[in-house]
Amino acid sequence: MNLEDLILKCRSYRRFDENYSIKKEELLYFIKLARLAASAGNLQPLKYILSCEKDVNQKIFSCLRWAAYLKDWPGPAKGERPTAYIVVLGDKDIAQVFGVDAGLATQNILLGAVEKGLGGCIIASLDRETLRENLNIPPRFEILHVIALGKPAEKVVIEDIPPGGDIKYFRDDKDIHHVPKRPLEELILDIYC
Amino acid sequence: MNLEDLILKCRSYRRFDENYSIKKEELLYFIKLARLAASAGNLQPLKYILSCEKDVNQKIFSCLRWAAYLKDWPGPAKGERPTAYIVVLGDKDIAQVFGVDAGLATQNILLGAVEKGLGGCIIASLDRETLRENLNIPPRFEILHVIALGKPAEKVVIEDIPPGGDIKYFRDDKDIHHVPKRPLEELILDIYC
Repeated sequence: MNLEDLILKCRSYRRFDENYSIKKEELLYFIKLARLAASAGNLQPLKYILSCEKDVNQKIFSCLRWAAYLKDWPGPAKGERPTAYIVVLGDKDIAQVFGVDAGLATQNILLGAVEKGLGGCIIASLDRETLRENLNIPPRFEILHVIALGKPAEKVVIEDIPPGGDIKYFRDDKDIHHVPKRPLEELILDIYC
Repeated sequence: MNLEDLILKCRSYRRFDENYSIKKEELLYFIKLARLAASAGNLQPLKYILSCEKDVNQKIFSCLRWAAYLKDWPGPAKGERPTAYIVVLGDKDIAQVFGVDAGLATQNILLGAVEKGLGGCIIASLDRETLRENLNIPPRFEILHVIALGKPAEKVVIEDIPPGGDIKYFRDDKDIHHVPKRPLEELILDIYC
């Protein structure tokens, strides 16, 4: 698959086929890709917790808040939940700011997932305090976000909207998830070419 | 090229073949890829300034600080400078925090560059005030970082270091740039698989 197709398929998936288990080796491959991303000052302050075990998955799942714009949907039901998670942490002994690093590494992980026929969703809206307790995460590590992973069991399509259009994602009556994307011309401030 | 090879080739390049011009169409393709990255709350607050024109390139170049660990190297000399730039901005009318979004989108841009035989470097250490003046960037837009782009004219290799090893990159006597990377086992806090 070429890069553009890979990126096109790399949508935020929130419903999965729970019969498909993700193996430890797959998660290690994703971290191998994350490790190769650039890092500010080459500090490499990111750490990862990997989970593909049912009990631990549940401890993570219970802390997540899903899809703020879908008011009537509390999150994936049993049978369609993620089968693995990567908790992305910032090691405060190494750096104090992690955002761009976390984005670069997370994109490698998500693209790796798509390449392997999987998919994921970045979840930054979560009960960090409970997650810290559930997984015994020491205070040294800032909880940045969780990447939920699984075999996607939903269709996600991009909607081209006019400049200034409504960016709230929605589901249609066929249960297809639509994600409005701002047009290219709205993203480019000036071109000096 | 498969994803792992693409990511392996996606190093931070700081010296380029200045005879190779980057075209507007190539930069637009990179922004097309950036547009397809995930965005927190789907807000899509990132904006981009594209430059592939000599005068404007110079206005950007003069604001950049290069490779903090290479004390004796003031940055790329004439003939080896980037031939295009993407200035990544955060639109404060849309959001207040941009880090992860900027990382996700920037990784798509950098991978797109590698796919096209180009390469780049994220530069966040820069004189933002002068850059704002030089390009007339309104106060509404936060300057996040600059992506310098060009046809790489240097060899960059990854060095595997032991846990806790020195992460400062360096150039050897053959002018090869070495980037120490922390080992996989140092990045993984716990595995629940």
